[in-house]
Amino acid sequence: MKALAAVLEKFNEPLAFREFGVQPLAEGEVLVKLAAAGVCGSDVHMWRGKDPRTPLPMILGHEGVGTVADTGGEKRDLLGRVLKPGDTVMWERGVMCGRCYYCVVRKQPSLCPHRRTYGISFSCAEPPHLRGCYAEYLHVKAGAPFIRIDDGIDPAVLVAASCSGATAAHAIEVSRIRPGDAVLVVGPGPVGLFCLAFALKAGASRVYVSGTPADASRLEMARAFGAAGTINVGEMNADQRKHYLLDVTGGFGPNVVLDCTGSVRALEENIALVAPGGTYAIPGIAEPRERFPIDLFAWIARKSVALRGVWVSDTDHLWQAVQLVLSRQFPFERLITHTFPLADAMQGLAAVEKCEAVKAILKP
Amino acid sequence: MKALAAVLEKFNEPLAFREFGVQPLAEGEVLVKLAAAGVCGSDVHMWRGKDPRTPLPMILGHEGVGTVADTGGEKRDLLGRVLKPGDTVMWERGVMCGRCYYCVVRKQPSLCPHRRTYGISFSCAEPPHLRGCYAEYLHVKAGAPFIRIDDGIDPAVLVAASCSGATAAHAIEVSRIRPGDAVLVVGPGPVGLFCLAFALKAGASRVYVSGTPADASRLEMARAFGAAGTINVGEMNADQRKHYLLDVTGGFGPNVVLDCTGSVRALEENIALVAPGGTYAIPGIAEPRERFPIDLFAWIARKSVALRGVWVSDTDHLWQAVQLVLSRQFPFERLITHTFPLADAMQGLAAVEKCEAVKAILKP
Amino acid sequence: MKALAAVLEKFNEPLAFREFGVQPLAEGEVLVKLAAAGVCGSDVHMWRGKDPRTPLPMILGHEGVGTVADTGGEKRDLLGRVLKPGDTVMWERGVMCGRCYYCVVRKQPSLCPHRRTYGISFSCAEPPHLRGCYAEYLHVKAGAPFIRIDDGIDPAVLVAASCSGATAAHAIEVSRIRPGDAVLVVGPGPVGLFCLAFALKAGASRVYVSGTPADASRLEMARAFGAAGTINVGEMNADQRKHYLLDVTGGFGPNVVLDCTGSVRALEENIALVAPGGTYAIPGIAEPRERFPIDLFAWIARKSVALRGVWVSDTDHLWQAVQLVLSRQFPFERLITHTFPLADAMQGLAAVEKCEAVKAILKP
Amino acid sequence: MKALAAVLEKFNEPLAFREFGVQPLAEGEVLVKLAAAGVCGSDVHMWRGKDPRTPLPMILGHEGVGTVADTGGEKRDLLGRVLKPGDTVMWERGVMCGRCYYCVVRKQPSLCPHRRTYGISFSCAEPPHLRGCYAEYLHVKAGAPFIRIDDGIDPAVLVAASCSGATAAHAIEVSRIRPGDAVLVVGPGPVGLFCLAFALKAGASRVYVSGTPADASRLEMARAFGAAGTINVGEMNADQRKHYLLDVTGGFGPNVVLDCTGSVRALEENIALVAPGGTYAIPGIAEPRERFPIDLFAWIARKSVALRGVWVSDTDHLWQAVQLVLSRQFPFERLITHTFPLADAMQGLAAVEKCEAVKAILKP
Repeated sequence: MKALAAVLEKFNEPLAFREFGVQPLAEGEVLVKLAAAGVCGSDVHMWRGKDPRTPLPMILGHEGVGTVADTGGEKRDLLGRVLKPGDTVMWERGVMCGRCYYCVVRKQPSLCPHRRTYGISFSCAEPPHLRGCYAEYLHVKAGAPFIRIDDGIDPAVLVAASCSGATAAHAIEVSRIRPGDAVLVVGPGPVGLFCLAFALKAGASRVYVSGTPADASRLEMARAFGAAGTINVGEMNADQRKHYLLDVTGGFGPNVVLDCTGSVRALEENIALVAPGGTYAIPGIAEPRERFPIDLFAWIARKSVALRGVWVSDTDHLWQAVQLVLSRQFPFERLITHTFPLADAMQGLAAVEKCEAVKAILKP
Repeated sequence: MKALAAVLEKFNEPLAFREFGVQPLAEGEVLVKLAAAGVCGSDVHMWRGKDPRTPLPMILGHEGVGTVADTGGEKRDLLGRVLKPGDTVMWERGVMCGRCYYCVVRKQPSLCPHRRTYGISFSCAEPPHLRGCYAEYLHVKAGAPFIRIDDGIDPAVLVAASCSGATAAHAIEVSRIRPGDAVLVVGPGPVGLFCLAFALKAGASRVYVSGTPADASRLEMARAFGAAGTINVGEMNADQRKHYLLDVTGGFGPNVVLDCTGSVRALEENIALVAPGGTYAIPGIAEPRERFPIDLFAWIARKSVALRGVWVSDTDHLWQAVQLVLSRQFPFERLITHTFPLADAMQGLAAVEKCEAVKAILKP
Repeated sequence: MKALAAVLEKFNEPLAFREFGVQPLAEGEVLVKLAAAGVCGSDVHMWRGKDPRTPLPMILGHEGVGTVADTGGEKRDLLGRVLKPGDTVMWERGVMCGRCYYCVVRKQPSLCPHRRTYGISFSCAEPPHLRGCYAEYLHVKAGAPFIRIDDGIDPAVLVAASCSGATAAHAIEVSRIRPGDAVLVVGPGPVGLFCLAFALKAGASRVYVSGTPADASRLEMARAFGAAGTINVGEMNADQRKHYLLDVTGGFGPNVVLDCTGSVRALEENIALVAPGGTYAIPGIAEPRERFPIDLFAWIARKSVALRGVWVSDTDHLWQAVQLVLSRQFPFERLITHTFPLADAMQGLAAVEKCEAVKAILKP
Repeated sequence: MKALAAVLEKFNEPLAFREFGVQPLAEGEVLVKLAAAGVCGSDVHMWRGKDPRTPLPMILGHEGVGTVADTGGEKRDLLGRVLKPGDTVMWERGVMCGRCYYCVVRKQPSLCPHRRTYGISFSCAEPPHLRGCYAEYLHVKAGAPFIRIDDGIDPAVLVAASCSGATAAHAIEVSRIRPGDAVLVVGPGPVGLFCLAFALKAGASRVYVSGTPADASRLEMARAFGAAGTINVGEMNADQRKHYLLDVTGGFGPNVVLDCTGSVRALEENIALVAPGGTYAIPGIAEPRERFPIDLFAWIARKSVALRGVWVSDTDHLWQAVQLVLSRQFPFERLITHTFPLADAMQGLAAVEKCEAVKAILKP
């Protein structure tokens, strides 16, 4: 059997379409026929050659939903159900060792030093080649946790749960939202919109979302998700934004800020507004940048504030994101603004790079 | 100034309507003009003489919303805003000491050994008489936390937050719901419906609600609040109920059960169904009963389950309940099935005793 | 290569000494040369035939410390260090699946439905035979977490950490001890003494330990571990015990009770003494018993108490127990009251059955 | 009755000794006869005029232990025991409002916007004058929580618990130490030594302490408290320190760093060493400083680290610190390196300013 894949062979050049021979499955491995793959901002980043560890040639794509094509022996999902060909499934995108200090003592496998990711860490030069989702098939390693999706939902709607949603779940886990809290989400991209939904599910009574003028339609989407208010930084100056946020929070500021922008400028403006005892979480900082000057006394010490890093996610977070989408409590189908056939993967990368797409989907 | 109140003078006999002279306010005290009072199941219980500590004569009513009539000196709400006559307010129904081990070390003022409650612990024989909500005015002690309600909401809709809602918030706090969990609420009364809403806000992906045939309309209300499914114990036998709950939870059972019935029979059936690692919380057990035989090994030990008591609530829980109602994410106005003028308080007690009302409101 | 093992072939009859051929190691497997094995109360229980699931013939022994004899390929410990022959090691006694809901979503692998245990769940009839610690060698499955012990400590001192210590760590995890709390440990066996030490390390300011007259020397050991006081139930009657505990806790009772006895009689006496807001944890209930009548109102509801089950443990708990012993802050060497050569395993079972031993060690 | 006090009238000039008339006690107030007062680093800071809010003239001293001289009516301690003249007592040094959002909803009274502190926030110009501990008597406001000390301990040994100890308890509360963790305390002053002891009580298996050459005797004290190792930055260069800390922590770095120095230089060196998933807490940053450049990606985001502010403390923390000292598990008496009569208060300030004293005590 052969499988087509879009291969990143040279940075900044069009992906090449190659056929690979599907390899036999070892015990516990699963061959997934991809139904939908997601284009993530970090895919663009890798394609641009900004991540020096990218193992060329490789197949991009760490977000995906598919159906079981075959299994190496009996394979069960998280709930103990035997997987059969045709079952719709999702899987943990990270490959962890399962026996190190972070996997089994701290139970934070997202910090496993051996963690690798489909669509990011594997070259397609060696068998079994198919280790990314920009392809017809994905060859999943033994030991990977699977979630069988019984719901008849469009697989594309679940795609963002596999990375953005899981990362947002992780951000919420560390941000200590208490019932009744006011929350600010900065940056209404896929992670930000998942953070908004999760914050409401974590007990926040009101969630505010801020974005740039280019985010106007995303801010409208945020309101459809249940945002109590939105801030377009093109329509309010910094002083107005500050007064708005203090006004709606009884003068204290938001209890929790989820900064999903990756921009230090956002941090400077917003960390000063966190309510005493609150949290500033940064799921959006995903690549090295220059140092940023922090006012330790006023922002952190005097207010007993926590500045929290959030690095990727684990299967607990994936489970939460999938349950959230399946609960139908939020219109996640609206995230899918662009859908392309796999053959047009370059258009998907372009739509994400230009921030035209919230979530662009590739269909093999 | 005079204030009319419905006074419990003799158990099982109609409340007497008496006028009391409003006393001058000491520093920090507040005179509240009641807009709406709630009839709680425990009011019936006290009226029936089942609580031997009831200090006759007394004014019932621990649930209420009102407006500020006057303050003893400057008085501020929780957010530091000066209270002015006419402001709509809620207040902590419990009077705690604020300086004991439970108030300041454990920060669980619901366990303060000196805790007393308006409408429960105070006789009206001594001044200032007006210590219950079945009255035109309530005389609130100095030091009580107040929440000013700016929202133009019908005060009656907030009444249940002051006791049922706060108690439900406390139950949720101890029940360790995790994002994505399946939850079962047993008993769709006011506490149960608040538990349902809070469970969804605590991250539950699906909440199931069970009730008796007499609860049929409450179960429908539960679906309007977002229950994923309801169980009418008159329509399914115990075995069917068990299989239904195992079926919708991947065979594990609900992660958390919130037993809002006060019935040990509910416990026997449902604690056996809690998923391993889960919690069985009993906000509904509010009066002494005979001992109940527990299978410590199968129900608790072998599954690492927590059986959790929940006793009343504190201002944190009140705040959460008020924020929940104000968020407009759930149709709490539907709880108010009966409204009576204060003069018909006996009809309110009857409607609650016969379980006709979900929440009966008295309007002075 | 051949390995000698003590085999349970028939309940209540002497263990038989058999030789097994050591099987070749598959990738990731480890052959451990046992330095010391522990005799646990449940070994006696299995030998007596009280656990119907016991897979005869089998090699008992789930507690052990040893050295690496060989590895199947490169194998690393928790901290990423390559294991070499001669390294002193401990390993997770439970074999979990690593990909189910309890392993990867709830991160409570102690509740993995596929969990099996060396020395408990495996027959020695099939290869690789050596799945229990009453033997010269243990054949450990691939994927097991290992802890390398660099400290020159006597391996026998670490043995109890592998089961009693890990279970105690789990009990402490769920018992919510707060800094400054008063704690009562009931039953000064190995689990109880580990609970005492862990409670002090969890912030308890004072830990009291109660036992029977037969526990007199164990109570003295408890004082050497740092108990603030001990109660010999043969020397104080129930009323005296109650008054003693109320007296040393400002009238509230202990905040946390760790019941390590397995006796429902201990529960009846002590759960009534838990301070409001406290926890009653039962690591000691490890086998089915008849139901026990609980006063839900007085013991649980009115005091917001948690009754907590504790089932076995996972690698996090093992790590904690090992670190505790290695910290040298408590005299764990005193637990080893009896040491026998493997050939005298029956004497070890007898010493534990008669409660003569705190911890009996077998040396192959 | 008259009471002598050392009064700060002019910055940088000797304290003046003045007599004040003791005022009558209102209901709930307590007059404390001071047995011992502590000289805190912030006293020096205020005396130097570096805190512009200092309300001259004023009586310094927020740390103290004393005996009850008189009470306004019946007054009880935390445990409900009636206070009588002669009882040894401690009290909450902060005066909170008890009814605001931070006091009753978040239960973080250390963040109460109305918080004032004896010895810091009160002028002695107005009655009752005696609001600081550099005096014979302290006039404590109604509503203050009291702890009666029955133990015959030297009151001076408890003095540091009232500020340094309570602040350290707060730092530990937010630092998420897990059982078995490795912890680094930077700066072995009174807060640092309390952090060391509390970290061991919070489950840390090993605590390392670093200090400057001037801290040599404090580092020795740290070893007497149970530090697993100490680092004298005068004896090891930055690279050696880094390798030492990585070496003793399996290459991960300390799980938690408690920075008790107030020095941004310490932060730069040590935050880079925090293990993934760990916490960097800064109880030592207590005054405004210039901004400090942070590597958000490498230090915080990539490692899921929390940078945690810690501001003062509340009565829960005071209780913990008192229980810790009374447990006699650590040699807190060694903290008292200098004792002066109140008349020599200036010598106390000098000993602290020059860092000669760990804790200097004034005896009225």
